Amino acid sequence: MDQRVSFITLAVSDLAATRRFYVDGLGWEPSLEVEGDVIMFHVADKVVLSLWGEAGFEAEVGPILRGEGNAPITISHNLATSAEVDAVLADARAAGAPQVEHATPREWGGYSGYFSDPDGFRWEVATNPGPIGQTVLP
Amino acid sequence: MDQRVSFITLAVSDLAATRRFYVDGLGWEPSLEVEGDVIMFHVADKVVLSLWGEAGFEAEVGPILRGEGNAPITISHNLATSAEVDAVLADARAAGAPQVEHATPREWGGYSGYFSDPDGFRWEVATNPGPIGQTVLP
Repeated sequence: MDQRVSFITLAVSDLAATRRFYVDGLGWEPSLEVEGDVIMFHVADKVVLSLWGEAGFEAEVGPILRGEGNAPITISHNLATSAEVDAVLADARAAGAPQVEHATPREWGGYSGYFSDPDGFRWEVATNPGPIGQTVLP
Repeated sequence: MDQRVSFITLAVSDLAATRRFYVDGLGWEPSLEVEGDVIMFHVADKVVLSLWGEAGFEAEVGPILRGEGNAPITISHNLATSAEVDAVLADARAAGAPQVEHATPREWGGYSGYFSDPDGFRWEVATNPGPIGQTVLP
Protein backbone atom coordinates (compact mmCIF):
# COMPACT_ATOMS: atom_id res chain seq x y z
CA MET A 1 0.00 0.00 0.00
CA ASP A 2 1.54 3.25 -1.11
CA GLN A 3 1.94 6.07 1.36
CA ARG A 4 -0.95 8.11 0.03
CA VAL A 5 -4.26 9.69 1.12
CA SER A 6 -6.89 10.51 -1.52
CA PHE A 7 -9.98 11.60 0.40
CA ILE A 8 -10.53 12.89 3.92
CA THR A 9 -14.18 12.25 4.75
CA LEU A 10 -15.96 13.86 7.68
CA ALA A 11 -19.49 12.93 8.75
CA VAL A 12 -21.65 16.04 9.13
CA SER A 13 -25.06 16.45 10.72
CA ASP A 14 -26.37 19.41 8.73
CA LEU A 15 -25.09 19.84 5.20
CA ALA A 16 -26.85 23.18 4.82
CA ALA A 17 -24.85 24.55 7.77
CA THR A 18 -21.69 23.00 6.33
CA ARG A 19 -22.37 24.72 3.00
CA ARG A 20 -23.03 28.08 4.66
CA PHE A 21 -19.71 27.89 6.45
CA TYR A 22 -17.36 26.53 3.78
CA VAL A 23 -18.98 27.87 0.61
CA ASP A 24 -20.81 31.05 1.62
CA GLY A 25 -18.50 31.90 4.54
CA LEU A 26 -15.00 30.88 3.49
CA GLY A 27 -15.71 31.15 -0.23
CA TRP A 28 -14.55 27.65 -1.08
CA GLU A 29 -15.59 26.13 -4.40
CA PRO A 30 -17.09 22.65 -4.31
CA SER A 31 -15.67 20.14 -6.78
CA LEU A 32 -18.77 18.01 -6.40
CA GLU A 33 -22.03 18.57 -4.63
CA VAL A 34 -25.04 16.29 -4.22
CA GLU A 35 -27.71 18.18 -2.33
CA GLY A 36 -28.55 16.64 1.02
CA ASP A 37 -25.79 14.05 0.65
CA VAL A 38 -22.26 15.36 0.17
CA ILE A 39 -20.06 18.37 -0.61
CA MET A 40 -16.48 17.80 -1.80
CA PHE A 41 -13.60 20.26 -2.05
CA HIS A 42 -10.12 19.82 -3.48
CA VAL A 43 -7.77 20.75 -0.64
CA ALA A 44 -4.40 19.69 -2.09
CA ASP A 45 -3.11 18.15 -5.28
CA LYS A 46 -4.93 14.79 -5.62
CA VAL A 47 -6.64 15.23 -2.22
CA VAL A 48 -10.35 15.88 -1.64
CA LEU A 49 -12.12 16.85 1.58
CA SER A 50 -15.54 15.21 1.55
CA LEU A 51 -18.23 16.40 3.94
CA TRP A 52 -20.73 13.57 3.93
CA GLY A 53 -24.15 13.61 5.53
CA GLU A 54 -24.29 11.36 8.57
CA ALA A 55 -27.00 9.10 7.17
CA GLY A 56 -24.91 8.09 4.17
CA PHE A 57 -21.77 7.78 6.30
CA GLU A 58 -23.44 5.54 8.87
CA ALA A 59 -25.09 3.36 6.23
CA GLU A 60 -21.71 2.60 4.68
CA VAL A 61 -19.21 2.89 7.54
CA GLY A 62 -21.28 2.05 10.62
CA PRO A 63 -22.58 3.85 13.71
CA ILE A 64 -20.80 7.05 14.68
CA LEU A 65 -19.34 7.53 18.14
CA ARG A 66 -21.37 10.24 19.90
CA GLY A 67 -21.06 12.13 23.14
CA GLU A 68 -19.05 14.87 24.80
CA GLY A 69 -15.56 15.77 23.69
CA ASN A 70 -13.55 16.29 20.53
CA ALA A 71 -13.37 13.89 17.62
CA PRO A 72 -9.85 12.38 17.71
CA ILE A 73 -8.77 14.35 14.67
CA THR A 74 -7.71 17.80 13.63
CA ILE A 75 -7.08 19.22 10.17
CA SER A 76 -4.51 21.92 9.76
CA HIS A 77 -4.06 24.84 7.45
CA ASN A 78 -0.44 25.96 7.57
CA LEU A 79 0.96 29.34 6.72
CA ALA A 80 4.35 31.00 6.59
CA THR A 81 3.81 33.75 9.15
CA SER A 82 2.04 34.45 12.44
CA ALA A 83 0.24 37.41 10.85
CA GLU A 84 -1.30 35.08 8.26
CA VAL A 85 -2.41 32.73 11.06
CA ASP A 86 -4.21 35.58 12.81
CA ALA A 87 -5.80 36.67 9.52
CA VAL A 88 -7.14 33.18 8.75
CA LEU A 89 -8.59 32.82 12.24
CA ALA A 90 -10.33 36.16 11.62
CA ASP A 91 -11.63 34.75 8.30
CA ALA A 92 -13.04 31.73 10.14
CA ARG A 93 -14.74 33.98 12.69
CA ALA A 94 -16.23 36.12 9.93
CA ALA A 95 -17.43 32.97 8.15
CA GLY A 96 -19.38 31.97 11.24
CA ALA A 97 -17.14 29.39 12.91
CA PRO A 98 -18.94 28.52 16.15
CA GLN A 99 -15.70 28.57 18.15
CA VAL A 100 -12.41 30.34 17.45
CA GLU A 101 -9.41 30.28 19.80
CA HIS A 102 -6.73 32.92 19.52
CA ALA A 103 -3.40 31.63 18.29
CA THR A 104 -0.57 31.18 20.75
CA PRO A 105 3.10 30.13 20.63
CA ARG A 106 3.41 26.35 21.03
CA GLU A 107 6.08 24.36 22.83
CA TRP A 108 6.87 22.56 19.55
CA GLY A 109 8.05 25.87 18.11
CA GLY A 110 5.06 27.00 16.10
CA TYR A 111 2.26 29.52 16.49
CA SER A 112 -1.26 28.21 16.13
CA GLY A 113 -4.90 28.58 17.00
CA TYR A 114 -7.99 26.49 16.41
CA PHE A 115 -11.46 27.04 15.10
CA SER A 116 -14.40 24.65 14.94
CA ASP A 117 -16.55 24.07 11.89
CA PRO A 118 -20.34 23.71 12.29
CA ASP A 119 -19.94 20.04 13.32
CA GLY A 120 -17.24 20.80 15.86
CA PHE A 121 -14.39 19.51 13.71
CA ARG A 122 -11.28 21.31 14.88
CA TRP A 123 -9.16 23.09 12.32
CA GLU A 124 -5.69 24.15 13.35
CA VAL A 125 -4.29 27.28 11.74
CA ALA A 126 -0.54 27.25 12.18
CA THR A 127 2.98 28.21 11.40
CA ASN A 128 5.43 25.35 11.86
CA PRO A 129 9.02 26.59 11.57
CA GLY A 130 10.49 23.07 11.55
CA PRO A 131 11.68 21.40 8.35
CA ILE A 132 8.46 19.39 7.97
CA GLY A 133 6.39 22.53 8.33
CA GLN A 134 8.15 24.03 5.34
CA THR A 135 7.19 21.06 3.16
CA VAL A 136 3.47 21.82 3.36
CA LEU A 137 3.50 25.50 2.44
CA PRO A 138 2.03 26.57 -0.93
CA MET B 1 -8.76 31.20 4.00
CA ASP B 2 -7.49 29.27 1.03
CA GLN B 3 -9.03 25.92 0.20
CA ARG B 4 -6.13 23.88 1.52
CA VAL B 5 -5.32 21.15 4.07
CA SER B 6 -1.72 20.78 5.30
CA PHE B 7 -1.86 18.19 8.07
CA ILE B 8 -4.35 15.48 9.00
CA THR B 9 -3.79 14.68 12.66
CA LEU B 10 -5.19 11.58 14.36
CA ALA B 11 -4.95 10.97 18.09
CA VAL B 12 -3.55 7.51 18.83
CA SER B 13 -3.47 5.56 22.06
CA ASP B 14 -0.36 3.43 21.47
CA LEU B 15 2.32 4.85 19.20
CA ALA B 16 4.29 1.61 19.28
CA ALA B 17 1.31 -0.22 17.78
CA THR B 18 0.86 2.59 15.27
CA ARG B 19 4.50 2.25 14.27
CA ARG B 20 4.26 -1.52 13.92
CA PHE B 21 1.31 -1.16 11.58
CA TYR B 22 2.32 1.76 9.36
CA VAL B 23 6.11 1.44 9.37
CA ASP B 24 6.85 -2.25 9.94
CA GLY B 25 3.62 -3.53 8.40
CA LEU B 26 2.85 -1.24 5.47
CA GLY B 27 6.44 -0.17 4.95
CA TRP B 28 5.74 3.56 5.14
CA GLU B 29 8.64 5.93 5.77
CA PRO B 30 8.18 8.52 8.51
CA SER B 31 9.07 12.08 7.62
CA LEU B 32 9.38 12.93 11.30
CA GLU B 33 9.31 10.81 14.40
CA VAL B 34 9.51 11.77 18.06
CA GLU B 35 9.47 8.61 20.15
CA GLY B 36 6.46 8.37 22.41
CA ASP B 37 4.95 11.54 20.95
CA VAL B 38 4.31 11.58 17.20
CA ILE B 39 4.95 9.89 13.85
CA MET B 40 4.40 11.87 10.64
CA PHE B 41 4.13 10.64 7.06
CA HIS B 42 3.89 12.57 3.82
CA VAL B 43 0.71 11.27 2.15
CA ALA B 44 0.34 13.72 -0.75
CA ASP B 45 2.18 16.72 -2.13
CA LYS B 46 2.27 19.26 0.75
CA VAL B 47 0.11 17.03 2.98
CA VAL B 48 1.25 15.19 6.11
CA LEU B 49 -0.58 12.54 8.12
CA SER B 50 0.38 13.02 11.77
CA LEU B 51 -0.31 10.26 14.28
CA TRP B 52 -0.07 12.03 17.61
CA GLY B 53 -0.09 10.40 21.01
CA GLU B 54 -3.32 11.08 22.86
CA ALA B 55 -1.62 12.85 25.77
CA GLY B 56 -0.14 15.53 23.54
CA PHE B 57 -3.34 15.82 21.53
CA GLU B 58 -5.54 16.25 24.58
CA ALA B 59 -3.16 18.76 26.19
CA GLU B 60 -3.39 20.99 23.12
CA VAL B 61 -6.81 20.26 21.60
CA GLY B 62 -8.90 19.17 24.59
CA PRO B 63 -10.56 15.99 25.83
CA ILE B 64 -11.25 13.31 23.24
CA LEU B 65 -14.72 11.89 22.70
CA ARG B 66 -14.69 8.25 23.85
CA GLY B 67 -17.10 5.36 23.69
CA GLU B 68 -18.59 2.88 21.27
CA GLY B 69 -18.76 3.54 17.56
CA ASN B 70 -16.69 4.93 14.73
CA ALA B 71 -14.89 8.24 14.77
CA PRO B 72 -16.80 10.50 12.33
CA ILE B 73 -14.03 10.32 9.77
CA THR B 74 -12.57 8.04 7.16
CA ILE B 75 -9.42 8.40 5.11
CA SER B 76 -9.34 6.94 1.66
CA HIS B 77 -6.69 5.45 -0.56
CA ASN B 78 -7.93 5.45 -4.14
CA LEU B 79 -6.81 3.24 -6.97
CA ALA B 80 -7.59 2.81 -10.64
CA THR B 81 -8.84 -0.79 -10.60
CA SER B 82 -10.79 -3.24 -8.43
CA ALA B 83 -7.85 -5.66 -8.51
CA GLU B 84 -5.64 -3.00 -6.91
CA VAL B 85 -8.29 -2.41 -4.23
CA ASP B 86 -8.29 -6.10 -3.34
CA ALA B 87 -4.48 -6.15 -3.29
CA VAL B 88 -4.24 -3.17 -0.92
CA LEU B 89 -6.82 -4.70 1.43
CA ALA B 90 -4.63 -7.82 1.44
CA ASP B 91 -1.61 -5.63 2.24
CA ALA B 92 -3.50 -4.14 5.19
CA ARG B 93 -4.42 -7.60 6.46
CA ALA B 94 -0.82 -8.76 6.15
CA ALA B 95 0.34 -5.64 7.98
CA GLY B 96 -1.86 -6.58 10.95
CA ALA B 97 -4.93 -4.39 10.48
CA PRO B 98 -7.28 -5.45 13.29
CA GLN B 99 -10.31 -5.39 10.97
CA VAL B 100 -10.53 -5.75 7.20
CA GLU B 101 -13.78 -5.80 5.25
CA HIS B 102 -13.89 -7.22 1.75
CA ALA B 103 -14.51 -4.69 -0.97
CA THR B 104 -17.91 -4.50 -2.58
CA PRO B 105 -19.58 -2.50 -5.37
CA ARG B 106 -21.12 0.72 -4.01
CA GLU B 107 -24.31 2.48 -5.05
CA TRP B 108 -22.26 5.59 -5.88
CA GLY B 109 -20.56 3.60 -8.63
CA GLY B 110 -17.29 2.60 -7.05
CA TYR B 111 -15.81 -0.53 -5.52
CA SER B 112 -14.45 -0.23 -2.02
CA GLY B 113 -13.62 -1.92 1.24
CA TYR B 114 -12.48 -0.71 4.62
CA PHE B 115 -9.78 -1.64 7.07
CA SER B 116 -9.13 -0.32 10.58
CA ASP B 117 -5.77 0.82 11.86
CA PRO B 118 -4.70 -0.08 15.43
CA ASP B 119 -6.77 2.80 16.85
CA GLY B 120 -9.85 1.87 14.87
CA PHE B 121 -9.49 4.66 12.32
CA ARG B 122 -11.25 3.50 9.19
CA TRP B 123 -9.37 3.56 5.92
CA GLU B 124 -11.38 3.21 2.74
CA VAL B 125 -9.65 1.53 -0.19
CA ALA B 126 -11.55 2.41 -3.33
CA THR B 127 -12.01 2.90 -6.99
CA ASN B 128 -14.19 5.87 -7.86
CA PRO B 129 -15.03 5.93 -11.56
CA GLY B 130 -16.59 9.41 -11.43
CA PRO B 131 -14.73 12.48 -12.64
CA ILE B 132 -13.68 13.48 -9.12
CA GLY B 133 -12.27 10.02 -8.49
CA GLN B 134 -9.96 10.43 -11.45
CA THR B 135 -8.51 13.62 -10.00
CA VAL B 136 -6.97 11.86 -6.99
CA LEU B 137 -5.17 9.04 -8.78
CA PRO B 138 -1.35 9.08 -8.82
